Amino acid sequence: MSAPLIREGARDKAARVRLLLLDVDGVLTDGKIVYDADGREIKAFHVRDGHGIKMLQGAGVEVGIVTGRRSTIVEARARELGMALVSQGVSDKLAAWRAMLQEARLTPEQTAYVGDDILDVPLLRAVGFAAAVGDAEECVARVADYVAVRPGGNGAVREIAEFILRARGAWETVTGDLLDPRRGA
Amino acid sequence: MSAPLIREGARDKAARVRLLLLDVDGVLTDGKIVYDADGREIKAFHVRDGHGIKMLQGAGVEVGIVTGRRSTIVEARARELGMALVSQGVSDKLAAWRAMLQEARLTPEQTAYVGDDILDVPLLRAVGFAAAVGDAEECVARVADYVAVRPGGNGAVREIAEFILRARGAWETVTGDLLDPRRGA
Amino acid sequence: MSAPLIREGARDKAARVRLLLLDVDGVLTDGKIVYDADGREIKAFHVRDGHGIKMLQGAGVEVGIVTGRRSTIVEARARELGMALVSQGVSDKLAAWRAMLQEARLTPEQTAYVGDDILDVPLLRAVGFAAAVGDAEECVARVADYVAVRPGGNGAVREIAEFILRARGAWETVTGDLLDPRRGA
Amino acid sequence: MSAPLIREGARDKAARVRLLLLDVDGVLTDGKIVYDADGREIKAFHVRDGHGIKMLQGAGVEVGIVTGRRSTIVEARARELGMALVSQGVSDKLAAWRAMLQEARLTPEQTAYVGDDILDVPLLRAVGFAAAVGDAEECVARVADYVAVRPGGNGAVREIAEFILRARGAWETVTGDLLDPRRGA
Repeated sequence: MSAPLIREGARDKAARVRLLLLDVDGVLTDGKIVYDADGREIKAFHVRDGHGIKMLQGAGVEVGIVTGRRSTIVEARARELGMALVSQGVSDKLAAWRAMLQEARLTPEQTAYVGDDILDVPLLRAVGFAAAVGDAEECVARVADYVAVRPGGNGAVREIAEFILRARGAWETVTGDLLDPRRGA
Repeated sequence: MSAPLIREGARDKAARVRLLLLDVDGVLTDGKIVYDADGREIKAFHVRDGHGIKMLQGAGVEVGIVTGRRSTIVEARARELGMALVSQGVSDKLAAWRAMLQEARLTPEQTAYVGDDILDVPLLRAVGFAAAVGDAEECVARVADYVAVRPGGNGAVREIAEFILRARGAWETVTGDLLDPRRGA
Repeated sequence: MSAPLIREGARDKAARVRLLLLDVDGVLTDGKIVYDADGREIKAFHVRDGHGIKMLQGAGVEVGIVTGRRSTIVEARARELGMALVSQGVSDKLAAWRAMLQEARLTPEQTAYVGDDILDVPLLRAVGFAAAVGDAEECVARVADYVAVRPGGNGAVREIAEFILRARGAWETVTGDLLDPRRGA
Repeated sequence: MSAPLIREGARDKAARVRLLLLDVDGVLTDGKIVYDADGREIKAFHVRDGHGIKMLQGAGVEVGIVTGRRSTIVEARARELGMALVSQGVSDKLAAWRAMLQEARLTPEQTAYVGDDILDVPLLRAVGFAAAVGDAEECVARVADYVAVRPGGNGAVREIAEFILRARGAWETVTGDLLDPRRGA
């Protein structure tokens, strides 16, 4: 595996994150829009992304969703992972983000976003820490503080979650008991 | 990521495109023919291909479908993306294309096609700008003006859309507001 | 893309093929055994494999299936592609092949098989031309006359079909009209 | 294909294995959590993993499941492959393993586990032989005796099964008849 692209200052920016917002298609999924024979959507998430989200929550970082499309599956997955801030069918992601900022009483610097395509660029420029999945469009990678190795839907969110947790010095706390060599004895 | 194959004159040819026609299986999808337990088809498109199609339409380039198979899912996806020219179950792609030319009052030079397999070769030779997905059969890549890096169903159409938009000098217009650094401020 | 592995004599052996037999899971599919929520199977084939099968049939090479599992989807796909020789739920592939030989009045040298796993090895050793998908187990690749670049379910059968057609000198006949530069004029 | 990572002593450890335990999501699957339009799960296993499990059983190595999630599809797949020890919805994998040890009257050294994520680390430290899928998180790969080349859901379990069988000197016995050159004659 090659290395992620980490721009100057990325760690300091990531350390301030209190709210991580995620795009859905292409970020929490691999970008596939799948329809069954009745035209109803099927959606695939990744198990390790889910665990990354839970670890962030365990360290006091809230995780939410801002997406342009709409799907009941996304609502169910958000519920399953305990994400309260879910904004679907959004045409102006900046506006949705501003509303969330107010609701959560956070400054822009305390927020992060993960995107894959050009529609994500304005919000990526606005947040404190901007991340891109490994297979993001070039215009997205160009404005990101962190470009993941892993593609969307294949662990990119897990990788970004770990980067934020390490930057905040929370990795050992969240994982400590699990990684402690004496526990498996 | 490696580089696309761009043959001489490709940019000039792409600049003239007013109608982009797409094959479905292997181009808008990754070529998988998926059946559920009742033998009904499931189909997977890519979210960024959809956005590429919308950007082309926004720049005045019409986008349509010419495919040898038939699926109601394709109709639904075409409707979702506002594509009016949809020709399914076509055994002679050249004939379908000629009919579309007349209907849309365009010359061959103003049309483009994206293919993946040998049945696409005659139409690729006939259009003004011929494109192939990254995992196309060799005989297809050989006649293409542009061979994408990304494989079918994984962003190839998005990549080709961007190439056409840049060749037409429309990329900045279509994306300008989104890529403007001051907008995220 | 890297190159296929072509063992000495592979072309001569392929040239004699009158019946190509295919394994299903891992050869016509990528090996994924997919279950829906009711435990019923979903199966994914590849569009270009289907076209490869049709081209072989067009050149007088029959194509059939020999597989250890059982699925109604496979029957439907075989019917769709006009394959009459379908042997599912087979525990002894050699025995199934011997029965087909007799029915089709062919010699072992006139048959070929494509496999991916160890259970395919005895039949691969018995047929005239033995082929393996790109991601086959090593013990399979070791006994194959031709190891495809493409993995199972992603065009391996299409690639092997083309190799057989070229070896038989039938490629130009089958594709001639399509690849003729004057046809798109 | 690159090579697996085999730590010192891995073969001796693998030779002692009498019970192989498997995680499900990310190990027996590629980590995708797939929902249909009704929010019900779809799950994809790999055909060659199934064959690897059967070969282990044929050599007297029992195979079971220890997973944090719950799915009726997993039960059905376990039944299909004759796995009796299945522990789903487990929050403490170490505790589940200890109960299995007692039931099966085995020592820790006689057990193995395959994992992909941080929650698997304590159990991987406890078993005699620890294995990781090719795309496992780094913290998992670090504690594994064997890191597969193949990713989860794409043959990693098949590869690990073969490593255990060869370490136990059982590969020739299990496969002998199949790989015997005279059998295809």
